[in-house]
Amino acid sequence: MSSEKISRRRFLQTSSTAAALWIPAGVNGYTQQELLSFASEEGMQRDISKWDLDTPSLCLDLDALEANIGHMQTTVGRNGIASRPHAKTHKCPTLAKMQLQSGSVGICTAKVSEAEVMFQHGISPIMMTTTNVTATKIKRAMALREANPEFIQATDSEQNARLLSEAAGAMGLTADVVIDVDPGGHRTGITPGQPALALALLIDQLPGLRLRGLLCYDGGSQHIKGFAARRLRTLERLLAATETFDLFNRNGLSTEIFSGGGTGSYNIDHETRGLTDIQVGSYVFMDAQYMDIGGKDNDVQYADFEPALTVLTTVLNDQYPGRCTTDAGAKACTINRPWARVKGETGMNYSSGSDEFGTLRYDDNPSRTYRVGDKIELIVSHCDPVVNLYDSLYAIRGERVEAIWPISARGMSA
Amino acid sequence: MSSEKISRRRFLQTSSTAAALWIPAGVNGYTQQELLSFASEEGMQRDISKWDLDTPSLCLDLDALEANIGHMQTTVGRNGIASRPHAKTHKCPTLAKMQLQSGSVGICTAKVSEAEVMFQHGISPIMMTTTNVTATKIKRAMALREANPEFIQATDSEQNARLLSEAAGAMGLTADVVIDVDPGGHRTGITPGQPALALALLIDQLPGLRLRGLLCYDGGSQHIKGFAARRLRTLERLLAATETFDLFNRNGLSTEIFSGGGTGSYNIDHETRGLTDIQVGSYVFMDAQYMDIGGKDNDVQYADFEPALTVLTTVLNDQYPGRCTTDAGAKACTINRPWARVKGETGMNYSSGSDEFGTLRYDDNPSRTYRVGDKIELIVSHCDPVVNLYDSLYAIRGERVEAIWPISARGMSA
Repeated sequence: MSSEKISRRRFLQTSSTAAALWIPAGVNGYTQQELLSFASEEGMQRDISKWDLDTPSLCLDLDALEANIGHMQTTVGRNGIASRPHAKTHKCPTLAKMQLQSGSVGICTAKVSEAEVMFQHGISPIMMTTTNVTATKIKRAMALREANPEFIQATDSEQNARLLSEAAGAMGLTADVVIDVDPGGHRTGITPGQPALALALLIDQLPGLRLRGLLCYDGGSQHIKGFAARRLRTLERLLAATETFDLFNRNGLSTEIFSGGGTGSYNIDHETRGLTDIQVGSYVFMDAQYMDIGGKDNDVQYADFEPALTVLTTVLNDQYPGRCTTDAGAKACTINRPWARVKGETGMNYSSGSDEFGTLRYDDNPSRTYRVGDKIELIVSHCDPVVNLYDSLYAIRGERVEAIWPISARGMSA
Repeated sequence: MSSEKISRRRFLQTSSTAAALWIPAGVNGYTQQELLSFASEEGMQRDISKWDLDTPSLCLDLDALEANIGHMQTTVGRNGIASRPHAKTHKCPTLAKMQLQSGSVGICTAKVSEAEVMFQHGISPIMMTTTNVTATKIKRAMALREANPEFIQATDSEQNARLLSEAAGAMGLTADVVIDVDPGGHRTGITPGQPALALALLIDQLPGLRLRGLLCYDGGSQHIKGFAARRLRTLERLLAATETFDLFNRNGLSTEIFSGGGTGSYNIDHETRGLTDIQVGSYVFMDAQYMDIGGKDNDVQYADFEPALTVLTTVLNDQYPGRCTTDAGAKACTINRPWARVKGETGMNYSSGSDEFGTLRYDDNPSRTYRVGDKIELIVSHCDPVVNLYDSLYAIRGERVEAIWPISARGMSA
């Protein structure tokens, strides 16, 4: 090995501490690498303030998180349904375990790769809500089903059901499936009514499959502004699924699972007759998109859940009037709208339209202004794709970093 | 260890082959995990077609890539300037090495974490174009400078220059810096002219710093449609930087580096007097955003570079007229506009507005339609944030997968 290579390797091993000599008075600051060295199974071994995190970093307020999970479980319990939270939102086994411990009947995943990661991290009751259509994906799903009897997968066509049955049969398995029913958006799912019934009857006869019920997710209802309008659309879009549920029952087919709904309709979905559980995702984190839809008792803000997920960013430049530039652009925040919002402040607007830089512009009367080096905490715009940008999140109680949680399924889009 | 844990671990180790029993006739298909087992330093040990890749996956056409790098080097050579490609675009050490081997004078990075990763992978001539303002970031930058004498960092204020000098001095270093000059967008950089001169004179006196010149990047010019309009804006926005360059020269300050420009202005920037090199990024990949700006000899399409970067996706649902649904949504493509485009086809429009699903809608006369399981190749919308979603890319010659290249700085936003 050349001496140059040794030097590069030494840099890799020591770079987190090499320059520790120089720390300006009164300043703390830790890299992710340093913080990982302080972390243990019992949590952080030092008192680290969130304001000392290197940025951009993804932060989770544990008090808000626990309140959100608690409120969801209280509500579904009162309404006689269950929650089956969607892990596509958080991609984090630690969070999935908290949800299961709080009483959720299982978790959902959108991708087989997410399901694999969740199972590898100790989670078994998993329902994959997307249909696996290629040989590769079907092989992966069946391998997972072989290892995990609690894995259920969606299917939405007779052709696909035959492939799944063939693959399961070749492995000596009986694989559990639910039928994905289209709520009318024509994105995925089979048409409700007779087409769905015909598929269910086929599955009931195929040797490799076991029908467990149906799912019907109407993404389009979730962000409708105003509770009354959202309730009307939600219930109308699920009517055909309930008729399908009735058809299944009249034909002696399993309706053990009738899953649907989300964070925007969590307190509406129990009005859909037959629905067993809701695939809520964003409620754990909340975000600016959901805060804007309005709640049952609050037309302006959806305050049922607290914004728990934030991006911490640092001001890089304050030299120009009316604005400052930060280190959290599109690669740290996405370009979803509405833009991320500065937590606890008013009279300023953030945007992350640039890949590398965020821009904060002040209105006439901002609640404060910022100088170079100041940190800003941003309520995320749309939690799912933001989480997918980070390898881990900081779990924070008050202002203290309690733990670092891996986002183990980050980037698992396949 | 419980038997359940053993079973989960076995799944993790064997899941890529467990279900190999079942493969429908005439179908190939490989997971990322399988492909990694076929990869060696000499490339893939099996003939794998790109159409057999699991999806979504990020693909790079090597012929197009090499043509793009070649065209850039020919052009800058003819124009008497150099290229210093921006690694924020590809985050891939393999690509950075190709660029250096083709004659680039160095690479740029936007973040210190990117610079660390590039250096760890054998790349030395690195210029970080963003100012490090926190104690954490300055420590990291100085540790990198200590290990890598070819690391240059930007600064844009007297306060920051003093901090950098203090940190360098505490480590017994003289750190190389360039001054980031604002082209008028007020995002980063010091105001050109006297403010920039005052900063340069200060740096010249500070014991820990060595001035190497200036940079001035006008992101706003790069995507202006129409070559003539883009040329006018590009040259106008760099005028004050050239005046600053003259001021530096008249005061005996280093102008060894005067860096600016990008893919949209690569054949314009040599007209800016004094400019030494251009920080081109997207030219290696091209994308739909750049294809729309028009070229010098082609008002409609920017055809100077070939679209080399694609996302491969699979059709999941074809049950509804006029459309199909794929597995590449916002988490695989971002929501940048214009949307990704189907490579080689006409009469259809893709969108990735949903997190998990893409939607392809047909016009009246599409060049073809798709069935469930078919693969679609998409020219990416905006290459930088798309690359940042993937851990690796498939390097493809014709239709054959030649290698898997790690995107080692993916997610390095800090």
